[in-house]
Amino acid sequence: MAFTSLLKIRFDDVDGAGIVYYPQFFHLCHKAFEDFFDDAASVSYPHLINHQQRGFPTVAIQSEFSAPLRYGDIALVKLSIGKIGRSSAVFHYEIRRKKDSRLCFSAQITKVFMNLENKKVLAIPDDMRELWKNIL
Amino acid sequence: MAFTSLLKIRFDDVDGAGIVYYPQFFHLCHKAFEDFFDDAASVSYPHLINHQQRGFPTVAIQSEFSAPLRYGDIALVKLSIGKIGRSSAVFHYEIRRKKDSRLCFSAQITKVFMNLENKKVLAIPDDMRELWKNIL
Amino acid sequence: MAFTSLLKIRFDDVDGAGIVYYPQFFHLCHKAFEDFFDDAASVSYPHLINHQQRGFPTVAIQSEFSAPLRYGDIALVKLSIGKIGRSSAVFHYEIRRKKDSRLCFSAQITKVFMNLENKKVLAIPDDMRELWKNIL
Amino acid sequence: MAFTSLLKIRFDDVDGAGIVYYPQFFHLCHKAFEDFFDDAASVSYPHLINHQQRGFPTVAIQSEFSAPLRYGDIALVKLSIGKIGRSSAVFHYEIRRKKDSRLCFSAQITKVFMNLENKKVLAIPDDMRELWKNIL
Repeated sequence: MAFTSLLKIRFDDVDGAGIVYYPQFFHLCHKAFEDFFDDAASVSYPHLINHQQRGFPTVAIQSEFSAPLRYGDIALVKLSIGKIGRSSAVFHYEIRRKKDSRLCFSAQITKVFMNLENKKVLAIPDDMRELWKNIL
Repeated sequence: MAFTSLLKIRFDDVDGAGIVYYPQFFHLCHKAFEDFFDDAASVSYPHLINHQQRGFPTVAIQSEFSAPLRYGDIALVKLSIGKIGRSSAVFHYEIRRKKDSRLCFSAQITKVFMNLENKKVLAIPDDMRELWKNIL
Repeated sequence: MAFTSLLKIRFDDVDGAGIVYYPQFFHLCHKAFEDFFDDAASVSYPHLINHQQRGFPTVAIQSEFSAPLRYGDIALVKLSIGKIGRSSAVFHYEIRRKKDSRLCFSAQITKVFMNLENKKVLAIPDDMRELWKNIL
Repeated sequence: MAFTSLLKIRFDDVDGAGIVYYPQFFHLCHKAFEDFFDDAASVSYPHLINHQQRGFPTVAIQSEFSAPLRYGDIALVKLSIGKIGRSSAVFHYEIRRKKDSRLCFSAQITKVFMNLENKKVLAIPDDMRELWKNIL
């Protein structure tokens, strides 16, 4: 029950060695995270950030890089949720090359729900908890 | 007869002043340029670069910034061609905010067709000349 | 009487064709702009943005790209000022490759002094006008 | 015996929430990695990549984000080495805010020494092994 974004690898995603520069994989993850809100949530992630001053800063990452992505590849970024706590959640990402489904990258990214103005950790509200259950 | 890409403004497009950082407008232009190849050309732009070692480096830009784009906006990036010479072409870009069609950015970007290995300027071949005529 | 920043070309500055991706040249310009404030102004540019909610959005660019920069090059980014009006100024940039002083890029970037909260154009204050005169 | 880079947080490092966007922390790490080569190695990292077609792709990351960095902060990026195997090494990074030494980010990044042309894993040569011992 994961959510998948299709994202083109762009000219600025590639580094001096001709492959996707490793920090760019996390941009791809964040784009899928935003796309999931656009697809499934009542408010977009930008709306949550800009108008409600709430968001999900990243607190921990575990990731593995298993194959390169190249300029011109299309990435399938699969997002699912591993665990939802009171105020944090662990998101699972898998990035595959569309043409042959080869796994290139996987990550577990822990995020905390937070009031971005006063930096207080917030309980994840019930409607958002329901939202994440779609990709459990 | 322009080509238009719809592109989401992403978290990393925005700067410390809360609006799209001005160099990012040129990324948006390049994405529309790539999308046009995907849509209309016989080879993708990455294929041209990676396998034919030919491409269109930028040699000159004139641009105007007339309104900000914000995180969460959708940008309409309109690409047309102003002039095709023997080996160079002038591309016109207009970027509008989708929600109200407000013009945010316009640019004339001159590019030269080049062999990327030996840095020799190349005549634009006839089939590519035909391609550009679609957006004249 | 220009101001010059030395900036290393980094792994993420380079694109799929192995040279500095053209929008990155504008990042280099902005870095030199920030460095000038750090060097010569009474407040840093981040302080101006974050604490005074004032800044210099870009309104127009004219630029020419004359030679590539590669990963590992050191860029000399020279900033001077061409014209100071009541509320706008035209900044001149030249980017050279340090090893052989080859000119790679030049630009005239017009910026307007603005209250970033209410988007009102502001008169450039006298102390800032004095500051710019150092690089006239 | 760590190596430390001082890096300014730039306008494009900051995201729509006004703090350093989390993937940018890995750019800071890579900049320190490059700076270490410039400081201590017989060849720069770009030279290794461009002329010897050898480099250190990232294969795994564990990282924790403990405090935000803001536009205008100066980051102290500390690089040391945790373990050197036959062909891989684990690099430790700590990023602190210069003004108060607050720890913002730490990571263990595993990299493999590789021939970038044929993607074969290489034994880390003795002179490079000696190099890393400086920051053990």
